[in-house]
Amino acid sequence: MKNKMLAEFLGTFWLVFGGCGSALFAAAFPELGIGFVGVSIAFGLTVVAMAYGIGHISGTHLNPAVTIGLSISGRHSKNEVLPYILSQILGAVVSASLLYFILMGKDSFVVGGFASNGYGDLSPGGYNLASVFVAEALLTFFFLLVIIGATDKRAPHGFAGLAIGLTLTLIHLVSIPISNTSVNPARSISQAIFAETAALSQVWLFIVAPIIGAILAGMTYKFLFEKKVTQ
Amino acid sequence: MKNKMLAEFLGTFWLVFGGCGSALFAAAFPELGIGFVGVSIAFGLTVVAMAYGIGHISGTHLNPAVTIGLSISGRHSKNEVLPYILSQILGAVVSASLLYFILMGKDSFVVGGFASNGYGDLSPGGYNLASVFVAEALLTFFFLLVIIGATDKRAPHGFAGLAIGLTLTLIHLVSIPISNTSVNPARSISQAIFAETAALSQVWLFIVAPIIGAILAGMTYKFLFEKKVTQ
Amino acid sequence: MKNKMLAEFLGTFWLVFGGCGSALFAAAFPELGIGFVGVSIAFGLTVVAMAYGIGHISGTHLNPAVTIGLSISGRHSKNEVLPYILSQILGAVVSASLLYFILMGKDSFVVGGFASNGYGDLSPGGYNLASVFVAEALLTFFFLLVIIGATDKRAPHGFAGLAIGLTLTLIHLVSIPISNTSVNPARSISQAIFAETAALSQVWLFIVAPIIGAILAGMTYKFLFEKKVTQ
Amino acid sequence: MKNKMLAEFLGTFWLVFGGCGSALFAAAFPELGIGFVGVSIAFGLTVVAMAYGIGHISGTHLNPAVTIGLSISGRHSKNEVLPYILSQILGAVVSASLLYFILMGKDSFVVGGFASNGYGDLSPGGYNLASVFVAEALLTFFFLLVIIGATDKRAPHGFAGLAIGLTLTLIHLVSIPISNTSVNPARSISQAIFAETAALSQVWLFIVAPIIGAILAGMTYKFLFEKKVTQ
Repeated sequence: MKNKMLAEFLGTFWLVFGGCGSALFAAAFPELGIGFVGVSIAFGLTVVAMAYGIGHISGTHLNPAVTIGLSISGRHSKNEVLPYILSQILGAVVSASLLYFILMGKDSFVVGGFASNGYGDLSPGGYNLASVFVAEALLTFFFLLVIIGATDKRAPHGFAGLAIGLTLTLIHLVSIPISNTSVNPARSISQAIFAETAALSQVWLFIVAPIIGAILAGMTYKFLFEKKVTQ
Repeated sequence: MKNKMLAEFLGTFWLVFGGCGSALFAAAFPELGIGFVGVSIAFGLTVVAMAYGIGHISGTHLNPAVTIGLSISGRHSKNEVLPYILSQILGAVVSASLLYFILMGKDSFVVGGFASNGYGDLSPGGYNLASVFVAEALLTFFFLLVIIGATDKRAPHGFAGLAIGLTLTLIHLVSIPISNTSVNPARSISQAIFAETAALSQVWLFIVAPIIGAILAGMTYKFLFEKKVTQ
Repeated sequence: MKNKMLAEFLGTFWLVFGGCGSALFAAAFPELGIGFVGVSIAFGLTVVAMAYGIGHISGTHLNPAVTIGLSISGRHSKNEVLPYILSQILGAVVSASLLYFILMGKDSFVVGGFASNGYGDLSPGGYNLASVFVAEALLTFFFLLVIIGATDKRAPHGFAGLAIGLTLTLIHLVSIPISNTSVNPARSISQAIFAETAALSQVWLFIVAPIIGAILAGMTYKFLFEKKVTQ
Repeated sequence: MKNKMLAEFLGTFWLVFGGCGSALFAAAFPELGIGFVGVSIAFGLTVVAMAYGIGHISGTHLNPAVTIGLSISGRHSKNEVLPYILSQILGAVVSASLLYFILMGKDSFVVGGFASNGYGDLSPGGYNLASVFVAEALLTFFFLLVIIGATDKRAPHGFAGLAIGLTLTLIHLVSIPISNTSVNPARSISQAIFAETAALSQVWLFIVAPIIGAILAGMTYKFLFEKKVTQ
């Protein structure tokens, strides 16, 4: 159990450091910057890296919504939900501190919104609360569907890490302009507490909407797609 | 059967939401937008996601031309062709509605062509009807060749989802400037009905050309590449 | 044998249509164009597509230098070298004709250099003959090393198609500015005959240099890395 | 042993030629250049190429920090550490010479910083020594964690090469603006000796920080995540 929590701590640290880090350090670098494409690839690859690096330790959730959705679908022990979530949030926050430390070593650094999520004025493309809520819930629903489906025994063995990581890339390609893309409460919390904007007052949405999407996906898969053993 | 249809509904929803969504939300975002490269990656990854997420439920066609081509090649039951196609079109249209809803939550939203396909004046690069028809038929021919070949028992097990998804990325890298890339009647229909342009009057091409390409590929593979059991 | 030749014809058609097509149609599209990154990804994915789509038919060479290198290393029958190469060149040339046809359906089309390779004045970045020759031979050497190594029985089964395709992407990321990247005589011939520039007079380099690199790689692997059965 | 050293020589040659080469030739090409995204993909794909191409010969370290970290974790023989590292540095330096030769075949070539790593004035984004040190150590720590974890017998067989290569892509997406990304002393040395800047006087950091990160990762995995055989 202790090793699993350490793995979730390190894995979520890496998700935030790689994903939000690529956004903060490299997205808008003059002329050669990686843009939203690069940030999307980076977020996905943090999951690919950890799925194969520590998947055999903890299952690589790295995200409270994932832990909850897997628990609802019957794939993950209910007793481990809380310790997993606490490890994830802690890893994300420590990671954000390191990002902050590294950015402070640059003269021109301005905190601003950090890599926080937001709606309305804080949405990169100016999308309102309703649009952001629907987008976050819907994207997390499909994220969990892929996670639960790709780790189903009937799916080809070994590919889940790639499929799930690349799905997170896809989700970012679609929704960075909408909400800066969360689908992950731990990631959102870690950035909001550093942001100089009102991000912290909006962080509830990036906890509630992803969890709703995850619960619906867990139920959908369990009741409609899970192989019936007896019947 | 019901589960298969639900899987096709959800999968095609995801293809349109991820692919057309990335185009509508993120392609032309100022400075950091994902461009045609990002949209191409997004379309391909919708297939990767669903191939591993629900491939063991329905086979992940997500495209009427794919269902027809697989049926011609003898890989898919002829009885399931119509229910599959209806589920796909329904999923695509519901997905387009959600895209529309989310976009309405943005002040500056203008429908325009939505993410519709077109030729002549409606081709992004101004390609005429003949060029677009040939391109769409040819690209769908190769798409089906990869789909049928990569799921052949002689191909390495498990890689089909990646190979097929990445082929759809390739197809978009080549042809977004030509036709905005269809190779999928359900995707085209779903966007044309929302477009404020004449896209709906051109949608026939994006039904006919892909299906012709798919049928030719199904026949080519069946008669030339399929392993002869007796002989 | 006939099926193998058809597979090489179709595969090389696809390599040229996808790779050179992405360059001609999409690389320099205003604002949203795919640039060298997109073209590099496209070339690599043509190989991924065909490796899984028709690899079990012909082995997916799609390139005279590959056929020669594999033959030198003892992996491919010497009797099939010539028919393979002829099928590849034919597929490439027919593909270039189709590219030409589709481009003609666009008002503003100018042939120019098509997607031809070149050195000196015809090098995208102005690299001279010696640099281009060394780069082409060296890149083809490593390309063949990966092809022969990744299909070695000791390498993990099934991944060769991905590794080889992604290596072609890498090769393009490095060398489009140098020579527009060949490492494939069939690809170079097919474009040079359509180019309005002096590309045809330079095509010898893109036949000779890749073949030298391929022969050296075939010999290196055979004599130094191949598993000794007796000893 | 001799074959292993040749494989490390060739592999590290390829890492530097592909990774640094893409930066030098293609990153800043006018309008169509590959930017940091392309360079990041290129670095990662050099590892993917070699992991599948020569992984069965030498294990594909291509990096003194990797050899040291694997040795600390008990995965690699201590007797081979020095020969591996010497082969890697030699391969990297010979590769840099070839890059230099090819660049000299271009009229407008200016050496400048070559593709060297640096901090302070030599950091692309102006990050100071402390930030660069922390970033390099931290990124190498996670790089080694993925390398050791993905090659653990409990991880899915065959995917390590993809996971490790794509992690190197991720690391570059995050940190090219910080330090031009090293995590590899051989790569840093090879570029610093050609640079016309003060890169050589800073190269100590890109030897020390990656090795510290690698040692910590080797110990973390060995003591916390390795499967206990008896217990």
